[in-house]
Amino acid sequence: MTNEKIKSAEILCVGTELLLGEIVNTNAAYLAEKLAGLGIPVFRQGVVGDNPERLRAAMTESLNRADLLITTGGLGPTCDDITKETAAELFGRKMYFDQDSQNKIAEYFASRGCTMTENNTKQAMMPEGAIIFPNDRGTAPALAIEGELAGSGETKTIIMLLGPPHEMIPIFEQHVLPYLQKRTDYVIFSRNVNLFGIGEAAAEQMLRDIMVSATNPTVAPYCKIGEVRIRVTARAHTEAEARAMVDSQIELIKKTPVAPYIYDIDSSSIEDTVIRRLRERGLTLAVAESCTGGLIQKRLTDIAGCSDVFLGGCVTYSNSSKVSLIGVSPETLAANGAVSEQTAAEMARGVRLALGADIGISSTGIAGPGGGTPEKPVGTVFVAISTKDGERVKPLHLTALRDRATIRTHTANEALAQVFSI
Amino acid sequence: MTNEKIKSAEILCVGTELLLGEIVNTNAAYLAEKLAGLGIPVFRQGVVGDNPERLRAAMTESLNRADLLITTGGLGPTCDDITKETAAELFGRKMYFDQDSQNKIAEYFASRGCTMTENNTKQAMMPEGAIIFPNDRGTAPALAIEGELAGSGETKTIIMLLGPPHEMIPIFEQHVLPYLQKRTDYVIFSRNVNLFGIGEAAAEQMLRDIMVSATNPTVAPYCKIGEVRIRVTARAHTEAEARAMVDSQIELIKKTPVAPYIYDIDSSSIEDTVIRRLRERGLTLAVAESCTGGLIQKRLTDIAGCSDVFLGGCVTYSNSSKVSLIGVSPETLAANGAVSEQTAAEMARGVRLALGADIGISSTGIAGPGGGTPEKPVGTVFVAISTKDGERVKPLHLTALRDRATIRTHTANEALAQVFSI
Repeated sequence: MTNEKIKSAEILCVGTELLLGEIVNTNAAYLAEKLAGLGIPVFRQGVVGDNPERLRAAMTESLNRADLLITTGGLGPTCDDITKETAAELFGRKMYFDQDSQNKIAEYFASRGCTMTENNTKQAMMPEGAIIFPNDRGTAPALAIEGELAGSGETKTIIMLLGPPHEMIPIFEQHVLPYLQKRTDYVIFSRNVNLFGIGEAAAEQMLRDIMVSATNPTVAPYCKIGEVRIRVTARAHTEAEARAMVDSQIELIKKTPVAPYIYDIDSSSIEDTVIRRLRERGLTLAVAESCTGGLIQKRLTDIAGCSDVFLGGCVTYSNSSKVSLIGVSPETLAANGAVSEQTAAEMARGVRLALGADIGISSTGIAGPGGGTPEKPVGTVFVAISTKDGERVKPLHLTALRDRATIRTHTANEALAQVFSI
Repeated sequence: MTNEKIKSAEILCVGTELLLGEIVNTNAAYLAEKLAGLGIPVFRQGVVGDNPERLRAAMTESLNRADLLITTGGLGPTCDDITKETAAELFGRKMYFDQDSQNKIAEYFASRGCTMTENNTKQAMMPEGAIIFPNDRGTAPALAIEGELAGSGETKTIIMLLGPPHEMIPIFEQHVLPYLQKRTDYVIFSRNVNLFGIGEAAAEQMLRDIMVSATNPTVAPYCKIGEVRIRVTARAHTEAEARAMVDSQIELIKKTPVAPYIYDIDSSSIEDTVIRRLRERGLTLAVAESCTGGLIQKRLTDIAGCSDVFLGGCVTYSNSSKVSLIGVSPETLAANGAVSEQTAAEMARGVRLALGADIGISSTGIAGPGGGTPEKPVGTVFVAISTKDGERVKPLHLTALRDRATIRTHTANEALAQVFSI
């Protein structure tokens, strides 16, 4: 590869579904943020469909304006997918049959018991001299072409990525990011301070002085649903240097009023910290879910190797399942209803005993949009935790959130975060 | 206003926060979908920052390519906000002080007990002859300019909207949509044919003749993880006409070899169809999950009102929980292991009986990255379904997928899709 430094970039996303507004262009935001992190300015982003003339025109314009063009989409097996072929033409490269890519594609199909079709071989056709970035999650690899743009004397680079984010992002992190780091002068290093139990606005106010004064490292809050993170990012010539700058900035943050809300540093999620803490203490967990309907356990089992901590649990969606699976008493349900402090407590205790776990957590509530009453409107939720020392219940009033997905996510966060307090 | 029909449009979103990837461009998707619905083809979308030269260049290019340019952003009170001024220049219009807009802005501040600042008056400056779309939710109105592009003989239209979606969307719905309806001839109508159990490439090959020959309606495949959709889109003068064209095209698709893979039309997801089918037949469902760890039940309960069909289930992650919660026999586990045909069958049967459901489905497998063996590598999965007529097990070989999330998603799809066969 060339060592020429990249001074400017553009992003071009290819896909009719984007032009029709059927999907939101999260790829562009992801790539723009990564390039900003690398200190590569992006002056333009574009979206075009699978139309040869318009794609060629858009690619040509971008490559004339910027050192680097990153595209997403149009690498699939269908005749609509023409990104690779168009780029090859612009860089004056012939397409060749890449046996290695072909083997990977064949392997991908074989191991899934599928037979590869004629047009999958299209995905093994590569522009001469292309750098190939393998794709573990799909058939088409990503690729780059470096060199002189046909007709112009200028040396340019095009990186072609896949459209589906679950394929694009891993390839970017594993292959493209290291490639780009070699072609920039700076190293960017970030750490995240994980907060729980405080809103973004409140956190921002507590950190305003630091945020305003800090330029390198920068201090920026951003929030996921029900969770706030403070991203500390330093730019330096070596990673060691950047890392030291970030760590001393984090020490300053720990001296601010946000300190009590910090539950971890660089945790990918609440559940990730929960699993690690319980593992450190040799404790096991069981979960009983009603309104979250499996979300809490899905999140715990997203984490590879959680089985030494997480034993299992139940989704007791119906009343009868609360009784039959984890022994909630019919009297409790009759007297207080399924959405009540008492039921939440009996669920947490019941699942803990049923699975012989050290800790049981539970959720019950009204996620909506239906099912609300004047006494218990949509957003009325209880989470509980049970240990050998007894049960603790936390009522949540999420009526302001309204939509079902947000209420469920908040509830799962609160249920999991109970573990921090034991 | 002119009655000239709009035959093509582009969308240009202005804002540094978009270029830096700090926010996802939901405005572009929203506007693209609305324009598609109006039958106005959008061939390009763009994003630029608040840079005068680059903004002027991008606007000029778009207006030269399309009849209509819709912009978002750059209408605020700061000196960075230059969309209006740039458009005025391109259309050769002077800016004038619009007292009416000024009054509305003053009202807006008064009603909030704020005093308006000097630079808010900038928002009352308008290009001569502009059509003004009032903004009830903010200070800056939206606007349109129709007329001859300075220097060119061509008549073009530019509509300038605000950046914040909560201001942009209401103005679009109340004012811009009716405006655009008067300036278009066509309606676009789309339906999706949902396929399961076939890859995109294979589906595309089976449909190639139709895809190539069909221009209106168009037929295009796209894929989610483990699911392929065929989008059929027609353009006509009335929705009824477009709908009829789409439906007859779908009848043709049903005569192709993809027919056996069609599980629904216009379904938002496999679980959505599962719930609807079971509801139609008055059947109830229970779920026992091992490797999917709650994902199947989470997806079922994403659907509001699923409780009449979905009773609940278990996440039997540990062996002991398989025994204690749903009565898998220890002998079966000892003889065959947790990841086996026999265990999958006993899980599906056990959860069906434990919850008194008509149907039980289960998943057990090795999602990885750890836990694989030569006999049972990562990706070895079994899904099962149990009814009063007995159990059926489907072995899956997902070894090629490698990553945990994809294996779990595929497994959930396969487990749910079993319901289609009963």
